[in-house]
Amino acid sequence: MPISDKEIKLVDKMLGGDRLALARLITMVESRHPSVLEILKGINPKTGRAYTIGVTGPPGAGKSTLVNEVIQAFRKKDNKIGVIAVDPSSPFTGGAVLGDRIRMQNHTLDDNVFIRSLGSRGSHGGLSRATKEIMKLYDAFGMDYIIIETVGVGQTELDIIDLADTVLVVLVPEAGDSVQTMKAGLMEIGDIFIVNKADREGADRLSKEIQFMISLKPKEDEWKIPVVLTSAHESKGIVEVVREIERHKAFQIDGDLLKEKRVKRREEEFFEILSEIIERKISEDLRSNELRRILDLVKNGELDPYEGAELILSKILHHRQGLN
Amino acid sequence: MPISDKEIKLVDKMLGGDRLALARLITMVESRHPSVLEILKGINPKTGRAYTIGVTGPPGAGKSTLVNEVIQAFRKKDNKIGVIAVDPSSPFTGGAVLGDRIRMQNHTLDDNVFIRSLGSRGSHGGLSRATKEIMKLYDAFGMDYIIIETVGVGQTELDIIDLADTVLVVLVPEAGDSVQTMKAGLMEIGDIFIVNKADREGADRLSKEIQFMISLKPKEDEWKIPVVLTSAHESKGIVEVVREIERHKAFQIDGDLLKEKRVKRREEEFFEILSEIIERKISEDLRSNELRRILDLVKNGELDPYEGAELILSKILHHRQGLN
Repeated sequence: MPISDKEIKLVDKMLGGDRLALARLITMVESRHPSVLEILKGINPKTGRAYTIGVTGPPGAGKSTLVNEVIQAFRKKDNKIGVIAVDPSSPFTGGAVLGDRIRMQNHTLDDNVFIRSLGSRGSHGGLSRATKEIMKLYDAFGMDYIIIETVGVGQTELDIIDLADTVLVVLVPEAGDSVQTMKAGLMEIGDIFIVNKADREGADRLSKEIQFMISLKPKEDEWKIPVVLTSAHESKGIVEVVREIERHKAFQIDGDLLKEKRVKRREEEFFEILSEIIERKISEDLRSNELRRILDLVKNGELDPYEGAELILSKILHHRQGLN
Repeated sequence: MPISDKEIKLVDKMLGGDRLALARLITMVESRHPSVLEILKGINPKTGRAYTIGVTGPPGAGKSTLVNEVIQAFRKKDNKIGVIAVDPSSPFTGGAVLGDRIRMQNHTLDDNVFIRSLGSRGSHGGLSRATKEIMKLYDAFGMDYIIIETVGVGQTELDIIDLADTVLVVLVPEAGDSVQTMKAGLMEIGDIFIVNKADREGADRLSKEIQFMISLKPKEDEWKIPVVLTSAHESKGIVEVVREIERHKAFQIDGDLLKEKRVKRREEEFFEILSEIIERKISEDLRSNELRRILDLVKNGELDPYEGAELILSKILHHRQGLN
């Protein structure tokens, strides 16, 4: 679908710093507006600058409070920040995390901070796709840092490690089997570990436990995973968190690791785009009577779906001129 | 990829009732063996008979115990049963549900019951795809009923309502905000509600609450959603559950609703197969130098991914003869 003048104007406004235009474009991405592909194509040359930080951990670990503090620290350095708060288990768009969002509201009057919540129900086409596309919008908008906050409950639809340049894992001094299980999965993905609510009993023990688990990990590169103690609600330890993020960023830039990650991501993105334009091509071709007839035969069980698919593919590939 | 003689033999064995062959084919599906498409194509003519029951509800509702009892009831009617236990939040294949699986073990010596657990980590290509494909295998194997058990925690990767002919929602008399939230999502999808652990206090109140919520639902068809009280661990109420399943099945057959559902599912399946064979075609074509060069330019950021994708699509479509 060709992009309309109205949409071009909206993109231009967004690129010029208009927050309302950004908000509208995010909504279009979420609802799979037919021009999404064209919009993303239009902004692509403006992307590639933002650094992405993933923040994950079990529910109740104080992730939102921590993110809030990290935003403030970045703002003091005059960085522009975009936040995507993802809750895959929430059937409401931002409903279940409303309390947390309200806590983040003190940034909403700041023009250089933009926060968006994503629940499963609001994002057609999957959370992972919506998150990636909003990241693109934030990047084009000129965000220096993009923070993706998500609940870490085993393997979820959203693999934060595929999206983030630095992954923060936030844990709290609390026992319980479920936390233990979660930790196992989270141990593998953290670049920086944070023991939040460090004023609680057991913080030192948890910190040592994490240090020990880190020491067992096979070393893939020279990055020494740090463990930072914080009390986010008292703004304690935040300077250290930001310092470690910047250290990890510098480490990855120096060793060309960031470049490698981005090459890999561009490849993945490319195949996703390719699939999408092919899907669109097919749905356009299905408007033709011939392909429509094949679909109907399959729907009624008169034609094997595998044979039908092969038939359509061969028609698209070889008899292109004869269609439409 | 053409199917090998060994694989044809495996499929023949499975169709002949060999359980080990079925187990091997399921493993091939889970690990995305290159011949999966051909295998599924091969068994397709043998499918279409099985009736699928989805069982969902919050953790701790006693779903596995209930499924266990329902299996026994179906076995008394000499039905063949296939079970797929899905836990999207589990990073282990069946790890987190090990206890439940052990409870189901009393069927493992029964040749007419087959149980498979799916965790996220074990299933390449997504839980939803793996579940659908294992359903196909069960169907071809001659299962009369396929039971899909999954934890209902908001919207998960696996939408049981898209897969199941009858959806059972299992709840227990327990308060708590999270359960309340869950219920809201579950209320929409249940064809039959089960109040399990009905010997507990609050069972009657919960039953009335569900009845009331059902009464608020806009009626889409003439099916009157029943609420059944069970104590699965004492085998109480199971006969009623099975009776309601069979009643819902008959209701859907009489009103052509089952036929409609299957037409819709065949359509979805068809597009999934189409996407898959196109993806495969592209990855084959990428072996050619020309397409490979485009991919490399995109990976290095020298070519816009959108332009690259359009270039590849136009090459596949129009210059077919010139490739390879």
